[in-house]
Amino acid sequence: MATLGIDVGGTYARAAVVDERGNKLASSKSALADRTVEGVVQAVVSAAREAMAQAPGTLVDACGVGAAAQLQGDSGVVSVAPNLGWRNVPFGALLERGLGRRVRVVNDLSAAAWGEFKAGAGRGADELFVVFVGSGVGSAIITQGRLVAGATGVAGEFGHIKVEPGGRNCGCGERGCLEAYAGGHNLVKQMGEALRAGKGARLAELSGNDPECLTPLFLEEAAQAGDPGALEIYERAVGHLSLAIANQVTVLNPARLILGGGVLRRCPEMRRRIREGIERYAAAVSKRGLSVVEATLGDDSGLVGAALLATP
Amino acid sequence: MATLGIDVGGTYARAAVVDERGNKLASSKSALADRTVEGVVQAVVSAAREAMAQAPGTLVDACGVGAAAQLQGDSGVVSVAPNLGWRNVPFGALLERGLGRRVRVVNDLSAAAWGEFKAGAGRGADELFVVFVGSGVGSAIITQGRLVAGATGVAGEFGHIKVEPGGRNCGCGERGCLEAYAGGHNLVKQMGEALRAGKGARLAELSGNDPECLTPLFLEEAAQAGDPGALEIYERAVGHLSLAIANQVTVLNPARLILGGGVLRRCPEMRRRIREGIERYAAAVSKRGLSVVEATLGDDSGLVGAALLATP
Repeated sequence: MATLGIDVGGTYARAAVVDERGNKLASSKSALADRTVEGVVQAVVSAAREAMAQAPGTLVDACGVGAAAQLQGDSGVVSVAPNLGWRNVPFGALLERGLGRRVRVVNDLSAAAWGEFKAGAGRGADELFVVFVGSGVGSAIITQGRLVAGATGVAGEFGHIKVEPGGRNCGCGERGCLEAYAGGHNLVKQMGEALRAGKGARLAELSGNDPECLTPLFLEEAAQAGDPGALEIYERAVGHLSLAIANQVTVLNPARLILGGGVLRRCPEMRRRIREGIERYAAAVSKRGLSVVEATLGDDSGLVGAALLATP
Repeated sequence: MATLGIDVGGTYARAAVVDERGNKLASSKSALADRTVEGVVQAVVSAAREAMAQAPGTLVDACGVGAAAQLQGDSGVVSVAPNLGWRNVPFGALLERGLGRRVRVVNDLSAAAWGEFKAGAGRGADELFVVFVGSGVGSAIITQGRLVAGATGVAGEFGHIKVEPGGRNCGCGERGCLEAYAGGHNLVKQMGEALRAGKGARLAELSGNDPECLTPLFLEEAAQAGDPGALEIYERAVGHLSLAIANQVTVLNPARLILGGGVLRRCPEMRRRIREGIERYAAAVSKRGLSVVEATLGDDSGLVGAALLATP
């Protein structure tokens, strides 16, 4: 018996047939050219059908969908999906009709954390804090082997804790959020500002002095090369991330901290600094027994986790 | 059927016979004159016997003990109890022998939070964050109606998150902890420093210029009177508390936040400011559905909670 895992990202809908242990048996993706509800449902259904066609003879009885969205509990209704511009879309019900299977829609970070917990870097631990630094910053808490959902299903909004009250504008409409300093999208924004202000010679070199060509990955390289414009942004991001993660370790006393997401995956020095920050700032008593590990499933964590969350 | 609840504090061992709904049927206390293991066990047993004698005919089949201590999981062994100067004491086993009943030893803040959850300000909510500001600062997290223990049983060490890295010395041996700025004991310490530095005219008045007579309660009064020495300490404490609590609301998405502990109980303006801080700093999406309430059981929360945690 297998389950369909779907990841609805910014550019693609990805689908995989996943077995009970989290192994991907087949996968496929469809571009999200049309971001209307109908367009996205169609892209998901087409990716799902293709993945299933590649695993003939495998019985697929349910489907889990991870979406970058706020959800109305476990109802399958998307309250808000900023990337897609959606509000109050009965995504789960529409997909059930399209796929002819029971569908569970979950938040993409919850799905990714669950994937790492069940089939990746979290296996064997029951108390986890999972931090993703990609284009945004997010987290998930697992305690006693269960995902903490919170009162309205949005627990883990780690990217929106305030690290500089009244500070930089964040995409969420508030100010001074961790994500405004350390999320990939905002790192690029700050790097662009540095370029335009004539700071960041190494950044200019790496990007051909074109703000459009900046990526968060240039930041670590430029900072390590001592570029003052890059260093300022990098040190602030790393400082806020390290302290905030250390403080969550102090409060949550996890057995395992998983560091994931595209930015952390590609920035080894940033990961090293975060480990150092935990060593320095987390309460000694809370970090006893803690291991800090890197996510191992990469971009598949959400797919696999969504499938496993929907496994009956 | 009833349960014994015991609270081992700094000066007294208190005991109560508590029914299944958290009502205190009888209570008693013994001074902790002798803080050796034998002395404390004797004080607890004597308080417990007296409480039970006051509730004749009530069958008491188990006992819950809340202690200001780090515990070895659910083994009843106290790893460290700073107030008592204990290390590795099999407190639970000793009390079982003395009381002839099954004994469960839990952390005092966990007990207090559980008391508020089951019989106080938390009734009816399943997702709670409970903050106590008394002589120290602590917290407990309840999710899906369960207490979060963490990997080694010390989850909730909110007082030891770092709010000014490298800052004031904390009783825990580390620096810059929230408790070092906002815990009652450290508020008094800072007020004493202000007095000795000739700052804090209103503090001097209230205490007869005697640092020994300072209490955290003078701080809010002096700050509200505009005393600059008091204001500096107060604003820093309130600022750190507000932001840190707001950030935990953002991460945990609780249905209810309970504010308890002796300092918060007696400082209405501090509570008001914390509410204001949550309004300002917690992510909008995370505080939807949040209610902020005051603890209602006062000093009984620990007694009642310990009893209920031991209820079979």
